Amino acid sequence: MSLAEQVLKGNIRAAARLMRDIDDARPQAIEELKRLYPHTGNAFIVGITGPPGAGKSTLVDQLTASFRGRGKKVGVVAIDPTSPFTGGAILGDRIRMNRHSCDEGVFIRSLATRGALGGLSRSTSDVALVMDALGMDIVIIETVGVGQDEVDIVKEAHTTCVVMVPGLGDDIQAIKAGILEIGDIFVVNKADREGADRTARELSTMLDMRTAVEDGWNPRVMKTEAQRGTGIEELTEEILSHRAFFQSSGAVTDFLRNRSKRHFIGILRDTLLRKALLFMAESNYLDMIVAEMNDHRVDPYSAVEEVISKIMPDRKNV
Amino acid sequence: MSLAEQVLKGNIRAAARLMRDIDDARPQAIEELKRLYPHTGNAFIVGITGPPGAGKSTLVDQLTASFRGRGKKVGVVAIDPTSPFTGGAILGDRIRMNRHSCDEGVFIRSLATRGALGGLSRSTSDVALVMDALGMDIVIIETVGVGQDEVDIVKEAHTTCVVMVPGLGDDIQAIKAGILEIGDIFVVNKADREGADRTARELSTMLDMRTAVEDGWNPRVMKTEAQRGTGIEELTEEILSHRAFFQSSGAVTDFLRNRSKRHFIGILRDTLLRKALLFMAESNYLDMIVAEMNDHRVDPYSAVEEVISKIMPDRKNV
Repeated sequence: MSLAEQVLKGNIRAAARLMRDIDDARPQAIEELKRLYPHTGNAFIVGITGPPGAGKSTLVDQLTASFRGRGKKVGVVAIDPTSPFTGGAILGDRIRMNRHSCDEGVFIRSLATRGALGGLSRSTSDVALVMDALGMDIVIIETVGVGQDEVDIVKEAHTTCVVMVPGLGDDIQAIKAGILEIGDIFVVNKADREGADRTARELSTMLDMRTAVEDGWNPRVMKTEAQRGTGIEELTEEILSHRAFFQSSGAVTDFLRNRSKRHFIGILRDTLLRKALLFMAESNYLDMIVAEMNDHRVDPYSAVEEVISKIMPDRKNV
Repeated sequence: MSLAEQVLKGNIRAAARLMRDIDDARPQAIEELKRLYPHTGNAFIVGITGPPGAGKSTLVDQLTASFRGRGKKVGVVAIDPTSPFTGGAILGDRIRMNRHSCDEGVFIRSLATRGALGGLSRSTSDVALVMDALGMDIVIIETVGVGQDEVDIVKEAHTTCVVMVPGLGDDIQAIKAGILEIGDIFVVNKADREGADRTARELSTMLDMRTAVEDGWNPRVMKTEAQRGTGIEELTEEILSHRAFFQSSGAVTDFLRNRSKRHFIGILRDTLLRKALLFMAESNYLDMIVAEMNDHRVDPYSAVEEVISKIMPDRKNV
């Protein structure tokens, strides 16, 4: 039986192995993903994003428990800050949420960038696809909400919660503005801290000032204390409300079209590059170009044009 | 006279216009960059990275003044958190460092992701290239040090300073570990705050525990109060020490080769994708595939293979 078939039967070990194959960029992983694809699209994807120190992991832990309490199977994709040299995710799967570790209805996977087929958002969507095929009803994607990568990841989610926390420092104002547009729900966590009410008020004011509300949904600002579990049920309800709105308003159609387009283009970009690099590897062509660039005998733009004229012979006038 | 020739003569307005053309992804920008390329490689690139709230902008402002005091021309590329929907950088050029605004020896440019030819690190290196060609002796790249994009950006720099600040919250430990390997110099800013000494000690301990010091350079932990200018001269000296070490140790050779390779591959990836999308636009091919994906009639991996067999006919068996 193929890995894909085992995953579709709910085999967790097969899912874990496929995710490792995805991480290791094994060609057979692509074949398995092809087989899974027709059986996906059932999971509801929730994005949790916010600055470091906002308590996202704890919040995700609580949300997982809350969805489990409603009989839902929950997958978690946690994007940890990556160590760019050692290559691993810094917080491993093991130290995350071990209270769910004996629960077959919870599947947790930490992701880092290195080793992925192409960028963090590619591997996140592939891993979410596997969880979907595995039968997870909810897939929570948790990520630090600062860089473009993180913003791209959040686009995978049907519903995105932006988590803030009182008093994080000077440029927090700038970050708020940056992530204001990506949140369907805003959460002020650590609401027992000084300044929580002010942070919540500021967020509400900024949301009120937004020019256009594209889809008719008005994001609410909610307060939680994830450590104690305060406000979690209300947040779960709000997430489910957004889901219902999203589906009844028809906004989901545009969302799915854009997401498919992004997936296709991401895979296209990675595959084109891989084939071009394989072509160049045949003749040490890449090393030659790099040496010429270092001597300033060729610029990278002209070198790229030359390579492309060789591998896309009919397209050179495009 | 071409824009490139004007830039090489030190014309700041021409440089600003070329950077706008780069932002707008105009094809002629590539032609100008080709002309500039042989005349670059003279600027010393300093990366400043760290979490939000660490006071990076103020530190960059002070470093700029310090390098100016040593007679150096200084370019600054500030990567601001981006608003993913409105597309602009959140902090504009105007509100940054206006005390240098009348100084012809300082050129400041804020960058955001949107509109760039391909990703933030591509546009950062193109903009740094223009500043280099313009005759800037030092180019400071300032970025929030969390995502992979930011790590890629830092790889542009000859010398990277990681800026930390006391007491930023829970996951700061994880972030520290993540950026430990990318720093040549570590700065604890806001050193008047409670816990500064402890943060500095922790950093030193973590640096001591690193297994291999690749190039023989031992990163120091320095303390600054950027607001008051305390510790800035010492930091400037340390940056210049690293530069001298970097050049005398020969590590610069590997660095330049890796950087050239990254530049080439980045441009190759973007150009391949652009040409493929142009090909697909001829026949509404992309829309057709997206519709088929949404109906689950095709998976994105198979669709990509089909497209590539058409545009790279000779390479389909690669």
